[in-house]
Amino acid sequence: MVKAGIIGATGYAGAELVRILLGHKEVEIQWYGSRSYIEEKYARVYRNMFQLVEDSCLDDNIAELAKQVDVIFTATPQGFLAGVLTEEILQHTKVVDLSADYRLKDVGVYEAWYQIHHKSPQFLDEAVYGLCEINREQVKQARLVANPGCYTTCSILTAYPLVKEGLIDPDTLIVDAKSGTSGAGRGAKLPNLFCEVNENIKAYGVASHRHTPEIEEQLGYAAGKPVTINFTPHLVPMNRGILATEYASLKEVWRPGGRVAYPDAAQVREVYQKYYGKEYFIRILEDGVCPETKWVEGSNFVDIGFQIDKRTGRIILMGAIDNLVKGAAGQAVQNMNLMFGFPEQEGLCLVPVFP
Amino acid sequence: MVKAGIIGATGYAGAELVRILLGHKEVEIQWYGSRSYIEEKYARVYRNMFQLVEDSCLDDNIAELAKQVDVIFTATPQGFLAGVLTEEILQHTKVVDLSADYRLKDVGVYEAWYQIHHKSPQFLDEAVYGLCEINREQVKQARLVANPGCYTTCSILTAYPLVKEGLIDPDTLIVDAKSGTSGAGRGAKLPNLFCEVNENIKAYGVASHRHTPEIEEQLGYAAGKPVTINFTPHLVPMNRGILATEYASLKEVWRPGGRVAYPDAAQVREVYQKYYGKEYFIRILEDGVCPETKWVEGSNFVDIGFQIDKRTGRIILMGAIDNLVKGAAGQAVQNMNLMFGFPEQEGLCLVPVFP
Amino acid sequence: MVKAGIIGATGYAGAELVRILLGHKEVEIQWYGSRSYIEEKYARVYRNMFQLVEDSCLDDNIAELAKQVDVIFTATPQGFLAGVLTEEILQHTKVVDLSADYRLKDVGVYEAWYQIHHKSPQFLDEAVYGLCEINREQVKQARLVANPGCYTTCSILTAYPLVKEGLIDPDTLIVDAKSGTSGAGRGAKLPNLFCEVNENIKAYGVASHRHTPEIEEQLGYAAGKPVTINFTPHLVPMNRGILATEYASLKEVWRPGGRVAYPDAAQVREVYQKYYGKEYFIRILEDGVCPETKWVEGSNFVDIGFQIDKRTGRIILMGAIDNLVKGAAGQAVQNMNLMFGFPEQEGLCLVPVFP
Amino acid sequence: MVKAGIIGATGYAGAELVRILLGHKEVEIQWYGSRSYIEEKYARVYRNMFQLVEDSCLDDNIAELAKQVDVIFTATPQGFLAGVLTEEILQHTKVVDLSADYRLKDVGVYEAWYQIHHKSPQFLDEAVYGLCEINREQVKQARLVANPGCYTTCSILTAYPLVKEGLIDPDTLIVDAKSGTSGAGRGAKLPNLFCEVNENIKAYGVASHRHTPEIEEQLGYAAGKPVTINFTPHLVPMNRGILATEYASLKEVWRPGGRVAYPDAAQVREVYQKYYGKEYFIRILEDGVCPETKWVEGSNFVDIGFQIDKRTGRIILMGAIDNLVKGAAGQAVQNMNLMFGFPEQEGLCLVPVFP
Repeated sequence: MVKAGIIGATGYAGAELVRILLGHKEVEIQWYGSRSYIEEKYARVYRNMFQLVEDSCLDDNIAELAKQVDVIFTATPQGFLAGVLTEEILQHTKVVDLSADYRLKDVGVYEAWYQIHHKSPQFLDEAVYGLCEINREQVKQARLVANPGCYTTCSILTAYPLVKEGLIDPDTLIVDAKSGTSGAGRGAKLPNLFCEVNENIKAYGVASHRHTPEIEEQLGYAAGKPVTINFTPHLVPMNRGILATEYASLKEVWRPGGRVAYPDAAQVREVYQKYYGKEYFIRILEDGVCPETKWVEGSNFVDIGFQIDKRTGRIILMGAIDNLVKGAAGQAVQNMNLMFGFPEQEGLCLVPVFP
Repeated sequence: MVKAGIIGATGYAGAELVRILLGHKEVEIQWYGSRSYIEEKYARVYRNMFQLVEDSCLDDNIAELAKQVDVIFTATPQGFLAGVLTEEILQHTKVVDLSADYRLKDVGVYEAWYQIHHKSPQFLDEAVYGLCEINREQVKQARLVANPGCYTTCSILTAYPLVKEGLIDPDTLIVDAKSGTSGAGRGAKLPNLFCEVNENIKAYGVASHRHTPEIEEQLGYAAGKPVTINFTPHLVPMNRGILATEYASLKEVWRPGGRVAYPDAAQVREVYQKYYGKEYFIRILEDGVCPETKWVEGSNFVDIGFQIDKRTGRIILMGAIDNLVKGAAGQAVQNMNLMFGFPEQEGLCLVPVFP
Repeated sequence: MVKAGIIGATGYAGAELVRILLGHKEVEIQWYGSRSYIEEKYARVYRNMFQLVEDSCLDDNIAELAKQVDVIFTATPQGFLAGVLTEEILQHTKVVDLSADYRLKDVGVYEAWYQIHHKSPQFLDEAVYGLCEINREQVKQARLVANPGCYTTCSILTAYPLVKEGLIDPDTLIVDAKSGTSGAGRGAKLPNLFCEVNENIKAYGVASHRHTPEIEEQLGYAAGKPVTINFTPHLVPMNRGILATEYASLKEVWRPGGRVAYPDAAQVREVYQKYYGKEYFIRILEDGVCPETKWVEGSNFVDIGFQIDKRTGRIILMGAIDNLVKGAAGQAVQNMNLMFGFPEQEGLCLVPVFP
Repeated sequence: MVKAGIIGATGYAGAELVRILLGHKEVEIQWYGSRSYIEEKYARVYRNMFQLVEDSCLDDNIAELAKQVDVIFTATPQGFLAGVLTEEILQHTKVVDLSADYRLKDVGVYEAWYQIHHKSPQFLDEAVYGLCEINREQVKQARLVANPGCYTTCSILTAYPLVKEGLIDPDTLIVDAKSGTSGAGRGAKLPNLFCEVNENIKAYGVASHRHTPEIEEQLGYAAGKPVTINFTPHLVPMNRGILATEYASLKEVWRPGGRVAYPDAAQVREVYQKYYGKEYFIRILEDGVCPETKWVEGSNFVDIGFQIDKRTGRIILMGAIDNLVKGAAGQAVQNMNLMFGFPEQEGLCLVPVFP
């Protein structure tokens, strides 16, 4: 059995890691790290775990932890891991970081968007961006994986094949994303109170949300050039789920018979098929079907649909995930599976819960 | 007292008309029309009205109704009013139509998007599009007002001044709209069941929703040329509220000192001020504040905010309304107030309910 | 115009007072007291009030306030008013206290249940328990009104006539109450976060909730002897509304013809009619109709229904209110109306909002 | 592999059976029966099953089905199975019936509460009431199991040990239950629309709900005499979950030292321990902890808490389940596991999903 430690086990993403790992055949959790609940029984913090988890929370001593476990998951605030990670830790254990510390290769971009001084940029080169369906082979070799953000996982995977194959102009890309409230974390803040969120919808972080440069960097790799986009997140009165609605202008491509024209639905589908046809966790929906977050709730699936608007020459892409699973803990476990050579779906054959 | 009749009084928009008119000093409701509940007490269909409304529902005999009342509100399915409206009716009474029958001036566009044969196109010219803040003077003279759609009211008012003043390129406009579920009506349909909507978000009617040509027509008048946009509605798990998030490329304008440059926030605010500065029901929020549907719930307000993204040269506009008030019944009463010379705010000084 | 001050204007009950008083013809708010937001614009704390309220928040200096206004509403934590109230204040101004400080006549009971030392028990005798429908005449004469709790208003009014007339055995009374989350206040506490409340229901304060002795005291007056009951509150994932489901054993009464038997539905209805037949704000529903919180939302109504179970000899009573209106701010305004000789419904003809 | 057929596979309980059985190692589903969706792909009716279930729906020909499978689950309206069940079917296959047809031993009680003529009362004696924790040994031998109702499972298990051991007077028992809306099924009915359920709570079926005699019968067996109770269900704006709050008068029992007194918390806990100490699916919470439906969501757990009120001599019991799992499909699979000799937890080690 692989031994795992979680730092930040009492946030929502950490708790979802616990839920998933409890059903994983090859892993046992050794360390429930939580700065806020040290020595408190984990099952008193998350009472759904009553009689399932007997452990108490421990502190976040990563150096000590690294000696005891084979893999560490850090579901911690930005800057934490960058402040404590050392070569010695990485020699003892693999690390899957659910924070943003190693997602952006350019430390200047990180520091500009996060307003944090990065304390260990020396690991940026080594860190692998853990979008499994895109970077599977690198993840398998990695000691340090930067687990993608929730919005970014959904936004990138939805657009990636079309950018990569040049079907859309990436600089016209607009991502209008909607998230359930668990994405805001378990901190006791007024804007996250039930009565403030319920019966309400709002945009936030407009033109300034930190997931923007992450999407831009990854789609830039696909496009082969820098990409600048608009990304607008919204808060939706539901617990889980992210829906990304994405708009982009189609580019003329070669069509059968030598004509130059906008791609049609069949060509778009073909491109998705080329990249995701064998991917278990990505489901390209049937024509005319729009994804709904409820259909992936509790699972590691990404549901993708699209619609071409001939009137405007744009394509509308829609992607849906569970922000805590494929957008956080599920993808982290998927990365771990790759890093340890386990079957990629182990622990992740979670059937979506409906209703 | 002006006597009013409502056809379609048992739909959600009709019920909201009842709620608002009960607080209107100059109007009394004479006719609660409802094909589905004829002879049933209205307060048994909407039990919130117990002891407030003693009337029973009547049928939808508009010719008879026209003789008894001064104004008729039709909150009916598309095609109903067009099928029964006559010159004689309009000689007896004023009509505020909450359906789409007279919103689009081009009958061909109506028939293409609604897939209904229009039975009385002869009234299209006369009908006034009842967006009060834009067409106030025409509404005052009207016999027949086409009350705007919920999405369209929010989408148009949010973008109108910027299109009119040429600050944005209207053909780059993308409207990503989110609506509460009351917009789907009170019909007993599976997709509107609690368990299907709750904890879920989805797009629908992508590139095909009927409110698209309505937005295009009105913004076309503002632009002085035809406009083609993308409009994507989403269903949100809440009862009321519409949030429209709109994206458009800024156009270079003359700036003080003779430079040509993108408009800045102050200029955008100035343009909003020019058009809406004296409008009671339109609130331009302070810099950096994003509208939230909850802040206008139960009221006739439109809250508008915006953010310029210098990186992409786009502006993000956000507008919020209560879909049943400013998006339907409230605007209908506002139109009626104008048509009868009542103070425009009569019956509509509804303070938003929070939480 | 009567001048009003609110201490605790930025809690949910305080904000609802503002909403209601903005529509009151005889009152203007002079003082928005809020210890947490001193000098901040009120409309930035509650953005629904943007352009409706221009004032900034002031501190909670009640002695100063008393000189400036005719009535003070205290929507403050338990113990606040008792700690600052003086005879001098009451000589300047009337006070409606939304806290529990003067609800219980027995200071020992107060101190036992609230675990607070009561600092001004000398006013307990004078304070009138402001359940308007029961104590209307005393309220009219009062300087100091103890506005009833939300649960208690609903629980007492639902059972009062039956206890008073001896139709039920008060010691068998069990009140199982369900409340929306606004009852928990606007404090930033983990259990009130959206993700903790949504998709969840729980009991709390079982056999220990502070509203228990308040219900017991008032029903004791009705019964003419001390009453001990069970009261269990539950937290429901909705913003507003309280539903009280109450169970009690029927007592045998004289029936026409001289028989002794359990009362039937007609007799129960007659008793409700006797006490509430002329009450505008209390609606006794038709036979077989169960109240729903949504039917009173945003209004000052109390909807009451009942069902006799002949199999068990018990009656099930159900009462529904909006906890922030009849359960707090609405009732406070109703009390103020009585105290100042205004029409009792002034400012309170709020039609319930549905949906 | 055991072959299973589901009749009524497109209701919410049927869909939950599919979700659970997809994760069961010993079972494969052969027949997705649905009268409403014959020949339609199952994954088009429940899009969460896209790429997980390839089958199309079949009709409800139980005689044909019985020849093909080892076990049939009927998640059908009341009266269906009673109308078609034959001895021949039971000779071919085992049956777990999620309807009420064989839950009540007395056909007269069934016909009185359900207003349906029972067409196969000859199987009533044979049918085993499938409350696994109570009737485990009989279930193991059964051909026909009557799977308990959702409210009843929760209500009975919460009170059973205390009734059985005589700690409470069963005739004082009052069950106030609250259910998520999935319990109302997937039928397109107006009262189940999102806008009617959301932001609302109501009681229904007061003193007349069909689960009442089922609770009474089972608790009657525990008490050794007929029991009559009050049971009141409520509809809560959430998808899943049932919370039963139960009230009963404690009975004096022998206490250590020979005194006669009311039982204390330790004695109550001891009695729960005696009956449920080894039950995996029943969790007796720590002192002072109230169960919450969210803590069992998606799982087969029953969480039970209690509080003694010395003032009234009553005990308040609280039980929480997921109505679609332990209240329907999960318990059905638990019964199937017992009937086929599989480990009782197979397919049911579902960790509760939070948030």
